[in-house]
Amino acid sequence: MNTIITIAREYGSGGRIIGQRLAEALGYEFFDRKLIEMAAEKMGFSEEYVRENEEVKNFSFISNFYSIPGELPVSDQIFIAESNAIREAAEKGNCVIVGRCADYVLKDHPGCLNIFIHAPIEDRARRVFEEYDEDAPNIQVHIQKVDKKRASYYNYMTQQKWGQAENYDLCINSSLGIDLTVNMIRAAVEEFQKKIQEE
Amino acid sequence: MNTIITIAREYGSGGRIIGQRLAEALGYEFFDRKLIEMAAEKMGFSEEYVRENEEVKNFSFISNFYSIPGELPVSDQIFIAESNAIREAAEKGNCVIVGRCADYVLKDHPGCLNIFIHAPIEDRARRVFEEYDEDAPNIQVHIQKVDKKRASYYNYMTQQKWGQAENYDLCINSSLGIDLTVNMIRAAVEEFQKKIQEE
Repeated sequence: MNTIITIAREYGSGGRIIGQRLAEALGYEFFDRKLIEMAAEKMGFSEEYVRENEEVKNFSFISNFYSIPGELPVSDQIFIAESNAIREAAEKGNCVIVGRCADYVLKDHPGCLNIFIHAPIEDRARRVFEEYDEDAPNIQVHIQKVDKKRASYYNYMTQQKWGQAENYDLCINSSLGIDLTVNMIRAAVEEFQKKIQEE
Repeated sequence: MNTIITIAREYGSGGRIIGQRLAEALGYEFFDRKLIEMAAEKMGFSEEYVRENEEVKNFSFISNFYSIPGELPVSDQIFIAESNAIREAAEKGNCVIVGRCADYVLKDHPGCLNIFIHAPIEDRARRVFEEYDEDAPNIQVHIQKVDKKRASYYNYMTQQKWGQAENYDLCINSSLGIDLTVNMIRAAVEEFQKKIQEE
């Protein structure tokens, strides 16, 4: 059975780089923007169009991911396409998937380990400023806005609470250190694989 | 500076045994029921009386832990006594403290690493049945009741949300394994101590 690591993350917590390093360390495929491209390609939309319309909340709950495309709002269609891309990725091989409610999309997949990365707002503001090269007038307000959007999208699509510990196997304050975070997830993956093989 | 590990835990998640093993592995003091005894002793109450009246929500928020005892409801007085005992423990040496909102009581302590242990309800029901030797008619309902009490006490006393990842440095699903959980926290402690020494 394939092992899938899903990473949800607060904006500026370093979740994406943690996912990337983890994938490298484990020799797994890494999916992030690539997923959007795959989804966009399948739907005949441009990548930019998908990027603008994904992770936008609509007011019709998707109870069936396999509804016929064309009958739903664009952001729901994109969610369906991305969900299908996530399932395909999970079937192909071991991988790390960042964002896009992958924990929820794969919730019935027994080889799935779900991670949430967070950090105090001050540390995230520093990271966004230093590493992402972003300099909004009030960077903390900007971060909170991005998080609010992610949370509201996740809560709406999954009917769960973004950032609630019980949704994930491991939640880590990445201010403990990026290396430590990667190492801890790696240790969890090894133990998790042992457990799966025993069952 | 002393290192203090606080452990909050869902009922039946094994948080207490994880705390105990961690304390042994690190050579730290372990505080759990002992804290109640210390608090009870100081207040002249019997241990049983404290146990019955602690972690019970009252409808007056304690804005000052150092209010004069005798003027507050018993459960608030016990919270104050326990908070003082927690601060004393943190001043004496490295330690692991389970429960009693220790993460909140020590929130301004720079040597504090806050952990939350949780697990799926089915696994907790199994643990409560097998290891705690408890067999309520409907064990899952019983577990949910205990958790509800813990959450409501924590939320009331701290004005934070129990089980919300951002309150803690590390949240672990203990179904990954008790040993792994202990090892991961230990790795986090080592990294955390390096970080403190650098500052």
